[in-house]
Amino acid sequence: MTKKIATRLYLPAVLATGGTVALDAPQAHRLRNVLRLRSGDAVAAFNPRDGEFLSRIAELARSHGALAIETRSRKPKPEADLWLLFAPIKRARHDWLIEKATELGVSAFVPVVTERTQPDRLNSERLAAHAVAAAEQSERLSVPEIREVLPLASVLANWPAARRLVVCDETGGGTPIADALAALAPGAPTALIVGPEGGFTDRELDAFGNLPFVTRAGLGPRVLRAETAALAALAVLQAIAGDWRGARAS
Amino acid sequence: MTKKIATRLYLPAVLATGGTVALDAPQAHRLRNVLRLRSGDAVAAFNPRDGEFLSRIAELARSHGALAIETRSRKPKPEADLWLLFAPIKRARHDWLIEKATELGVSAFVPVVTERTQPDRLNSERLAAHAVAAAEQSERLSVPEIREVLPLASVLANWPAARRLVVCDETGGGTPIADALAALAPGAPTALIVGPEGGFTDRELDAFGNLPFVTRAGLGPRVLRAETAALAALAVLQAIAGDWRGARAS
Repeated sequence: MTKKIATRLYLPAVLATGGTVALDAPQAHRLRNVLRLRSGDAVAAFNPRDGEFLSRIAELARSHGALAIETRSRKPKPEADLWLLFAPIKRARHDWLIEKATELGVSAFVPVVTERTQPDRLNSERLAAHAVAAAEQSERLSVPEIREVLPLASVLANWPAARRLVVCDETGGGTPIADALAALAPGAPTALIVGPEGGFTDRELDAFGNLPFVTRAGLGPRVLRAETAALAALAVLQAIAGDWRGARAS
Repeated sequence: MTKKIATRLYLPAVLATGGTVALDAPQAHRLRNVLRLRSGDAVAAFNPRDGEFLSRIAELARSHGALAIETRSRKPKPEADLWLLFAPIKRARHDWLIEKATELGVSAFVPVVTERTQPDRLNSERLAAHAVAAAEQSERLSVPEIREVLPLASVLANWPAARRLVVCDETGGGTPIADALAALAPGAPTALIVGPEGGFTDRELDAFGNLPFVTRAGLGPRVLRAETAALAALAVLQAIAGDWRGARAS
């Protein structure tokens, strides 16, 4: 909720004190026309490999620009390894899901096609832009990855053995999520999956039941929309088994 | 996530087996033109006083209609007594906040003006319509109340002594929310407050510190937007100290 004064800019290029980094056209446009910044103004540049650096605008034209990188203000540090599997939903709801789940610390979005998924195209470029904006706003050092859409069955067939998959159970019968998560190892690689509108089919639920890496978790007595379920489960996971038990970074 | 086949309709009038209830113009329009229902079709009618009833459309015209109330499918039961205090935010974000917080079980929305609140009008009628739609969709029996906007100081001056107020602390210094909530009595009347963009002022935070009914709770290392903070805190509260430890109603 607190807003830092400095504009934060995600720059995957190498950031090092004394260096210069080029700005692309959308970045130059945003700094110049949206934020009304000028040469000499301060911004923060970050990426997960190098950390965050106080920087100054060295050049700012209509379709390009450059930052002079000054001192480092935050060191890189490990972030949560937390995937969110979700069935593609309606477009406006996607935008919201990406923004909120980025704020809540998701490291990768994994869209999956389930038996009841309404086939719909995902605009990955648009979603990636939302993820960058939310990472900049939320003071993350990393930007979550957006994976390509795959059938649920192939994602499960290639599942990494060490990663726990928490299935958010919409039938109301699962172990309450606070109890289900308390049994997990804190900080271990984790993924959450929420079903599509209409839920998982019985066949899908049976398949989850046979997988050794699955934990089923119930989300209370009310019917939640898919994106509400995803964010609620993420928040509970971060609060109980994630990085909300430490202090704020920086 | 599961969708019941029956359309649910919130009707504050008395519902009793064998009775008839009138539909107003927006309800008749929705059933007839949006959902394409006809006389004889089944819908579910509910309110928190009488419970939920299987009903049939007895009459459906352009601007009025009537339901014949048949058997009761759910008894009334006590629901969570959970207020959400929030500083008015941007309009589209309000709509989301009302929808999601209704799904998560809020019983009353209490908009408050803080020192850093951008003055903006709240369209209470619009927000109430969102609350009704979300209650119908989420299978609640009740619809949350939307209070009038008041200055934070007057809400606190008239605070009911038995209600705990959980202040979502955006400075990163609060007790982690899972620990803060574990100390609360489960099921007791509770309220959550999240700050505006820019956070609470030092004076406001000092005032909270002097109130015996306040618990401060930290929401992790990332900066959350006000509405993300509200939904995340609600989910954690329901999971740890709320109604997510019981099975689904009905």
